[in-house]
Amino acid sequence: MLSVQLADFIGQCCFDTFPETTVHMAKLAFLDWLGSAAAGGGQPPARMALAVVRGQGGSSQASLLACGEKTSCLHAALANGIASHIIELDDVHRASIIHAGAAVMPAALAVAEMTGASGRQLLEAIVAGYEVAIRIGEAVTPSHYYFWHTTGTCGTFGAAAAAGKLLGLDKEQLVWALGNAGTQAAGLWEFIADGAMSKHLHPGKAAQNGVLAALLAKEGFTGATRILEGERGFCRATAPRFDLDKITAGLGKPPFKVEENSFKIHASCRHTHPAVDVTLALAARHKLKPADIAAITVRTYRTALDITANHHPKTVYAAKFSLPFCVALALKAGSCALGDFNPENLGDGEIRELMSRVALVLDDALDALHPARWPAVVEIKTVSGDTCRERTDFPRGDPENPVTVGELVAKFHALAGGPWGEGRARALAEAVLNLERVDNVATLF
Amino acid sequence: MLSVQLADFIGQCCFDTFPETTVHMAKLAFLDWLGSAAAGGGQPPARMALAVVRGQGGSSQASLLACGEKTSCLHAALANGIASHIIELDDVHRASIIHAGAAVMPAALAVAEMTGASGRQLLEAIVAGYEVAIRIGEAVTPSHYYFWHTTGTCGTFGAAAAAGKLLGLDKEQLVWALGNAGTQAAGLWEFIADGAMSKHLHPGKAAQNGVLAALLAKEGFTGATRILEGERGFCRATAPRFDLDKITAGLGKPPFKVEENSFKIHASCRHTHPAVDVTLALAARHKLKPADIAAITVRTYRTALDITANHHPKTVYAAKFSLPFCVALALKAGSCALGDFNPENLGDGEIRELMSRVALVLDDALDALHPARWPAVVEIKTVSGDTCRERTDFPRGDPENPVTVGELVAKFHALAGGPWGEGRARALAEAVLNLERVDNVATLF
Repeated sequence: MLSVQLADFIGQCCFDTFPETTVHMAKLAFLDWLGSAAAGGGQPPARMALAVVRGQGGSSQASLLACGEKTSCLHAALANGIASHIIELDDVHRASIIHAGAAVMPAALAVAEMTGASGRQLLEAIVAGYEVAIRIGEAVTPSHYYFWHTTGTCGTFGAAAAAGKLLGLDKEQLVWALGNAGTQAAGLWEFIADGAMSKHLHPGKAAQNGVLAALLAKEGFTGATRILEGERGFCRATAPRFDLDKITAGLGKPPFKVEENSFKIHASCRHTHPAVDVTLALAARHKLKPADIAAITVRTYRTALDITANHHPKTVYAAKFSLPFCVALALKAGSCALGDFNPENLGDGEIRELMSRVALVLDDALDALHPARWPAVVEIKTVSGDTCRERTDFPRGDPENPVTVGELVAKFHALAGGPWGEGRARALAEAVLNLERVDNVATLF
Repeated sequence: MLSVQLADFIGQCCFDTFPETTVHMAKLAFLDWLGSAAAGGGQPPARMALAVVRGQGGSSQASLLACGEKTSCLHAALANGIASHIIELDDVHRASIIHAGAAVMPAALAVAEMTGASGRQLLEAIVAGYEVAIRIGEAVTPSHYYFWHTTGTCGTFGAAAAAGKLLGLDKEQLVWALGNAGTQAAGLWEFIADGAMSKHLHPGKAAQNGVLAALLAKEGFTGATRILEGERGFCRATAPRFDLDKITAGLGKPPFKVEENSFKIHASCRHTHPAVDVTLALAARHKLKPADIAAITVRTYRTALDITANHHPKTVYAAKFSLPFCVALALKAGSCALGDFNPENLGDGEIRELMSRVALVLDDALDALHPARWPAVVEIKTVSGDTCRERTDFPRGDPENPVTVGELVAKFHALAGGPWGEGRARALAEAVLNLERVDNVATLF
């Protein structure tokens, strides 16, 4: 039974056996998530969630990152999870198309604070949570992904794994927690048609539902033992095609999945990144300005077009999911940073005009590579009649095309320095980069 | 847009326009739910949920029915929802296969207590919640029901409608609440293979998720406007076949869906009831004892067999989902009441022997009538060579085959009298049967 195999792995997941590369990447992922949650915490959806959570009250168990107050573990997981995913700069895993951090980290941190866990225990929970979320995501992606926001659905399993690890669940309890994670797993892509805030709700609910499943399991609340492979289980219900072998092949042996994680440097949907990277490179190399451009053709994979083929984004948030907007913004602004997504650029005539000259083409050869690779080819024709063209298979921040630790720390400071203050952000970054030496995670917040 | 039409209905749903029959049935449904929640509250899954909820703390907004303590609105909805569905005696709607009360009532009561709503306002929320949950359930049943526990999934919409009504959401906010209800909707049938407790979690989560969606909407948190009919919405994601017309046909005009609700008198899965009713009738008429029986054949519809064709239930809870057990229990005990489902009867040799002589047959003609009717034909051959046979299309408690108010009040006392005390149960029944005259629902608990 797959849940039993996953429970075995979660139970045995031990810091002392982690390769140095695993510890390194898990710490970077935690730091990167903190930055996203810090910057997201000030955004309207997070402030709304905070108002709801504050209205409910709760014991002082875990931190609400947006305000520093303490609340109950379940509420902290929800509110911090909602804050995680708003600015579209949180980490992502390619083959599963999961933002594992947005779902796993809020659960892990809330339970770690409540239980007074050490940095090493938190790192074990993170590694276990990423492993479970990503493996289940790989098993059901891409067929699941058409309707289901994998971060919300598969993220729930990862959150349960992380929470269960920190709560010290035994094997049977971990199986139940996974069962009740799967039966709560939800999150539909329909919000994309409106650019609605549901997208942020999904990782918050994944985190909270995973913690709830683990807390209930600790009390003896049973769950389905074959939630993944069962006849009426998660995979059959939500994925026309799935591959259960991906859940267990090599399970428990390094390299762990957290090392396959990608970090984002553009503040837009990851599916826009390959084209944005190439556009930025071509524009820099050929010194292209918007006025020089006659036509832009982006060839890419189907899922990118399913999610981002929007020539008419109506909100700043929707613009982050518009491939034509992001490409035009890259040409005009020279970057797609958080600050570039603003009402001025959304209404900018030059960008809008440029967008009308962006053609999107489904490329079957590129599509066949997805989701193992996220490729795009950008071809730019200039008004002077020149054509330039480039391809990437691995957007910047992928393990094959990595950003440096220095870049990630700078990104963290850019995101967290404002809301948390530069001094505190610096101290926190220092502590997180040495997380294995922290005795009690709760003292950091 | 369907959500807009539903929001219009919810907004306009007004006690003063309700026919007397609607008010009558809504009150009976509330009383019936309270009895189920009272008896369920003492069962292990509810006690486990209570321990988790107590561990989280929270403002004193709404009652935990199992212990009388107050907690936050979201936690009360969860814990009371989990308690609602455990003893398998809560109400059910036939065509949608939804236990609307288990999902809608905990949400409605928690928000009504928090807001100090009147009995009339609570009745409006109940009528609105049942209408929305049941109509969406009718649209996706039965294809949705194979994987998805409709009470958990469609119940979330109903809970959001009830909560949104009591929170006074405007039309746009109600649409968002429905959008974020749909994107949280979950609950898989896989638990049935283990007889796991997830089934109880589903209505608790439906209630809590619905309340959360409404609370967030009140803060301005947006949701998908086409969550039902959208290309990546709830219906397409979860139902191979669906009929959107059922959501709006006659919407807003009496009779309201709450009047189509069925009350359960046997403490087992509703799909066992048609056969149990007929078995009890045949046994009484022909004075049959277990020793007289040579063979029993139950002909029924497919969904009943999907869920209850279990000849080897291993737990008392699983026995409630075993059609052979329930039929054999009915013959031996003369009833399938709450107290009849116990370890002694589970292990009883005579019942087990009788179960082995129960044959289950899929009857295509009966299946074609489901879920508008829940028919079964039972044929009993005796050892002396006689054969008797009877059919029902409407198990006892269906609107077409109703139980009396007196029977429902007696059922309530049997369930609530123990945990709440006879005096309090009597006072509560009196108040609920006059709910339209209660100024503040919070004073009842």
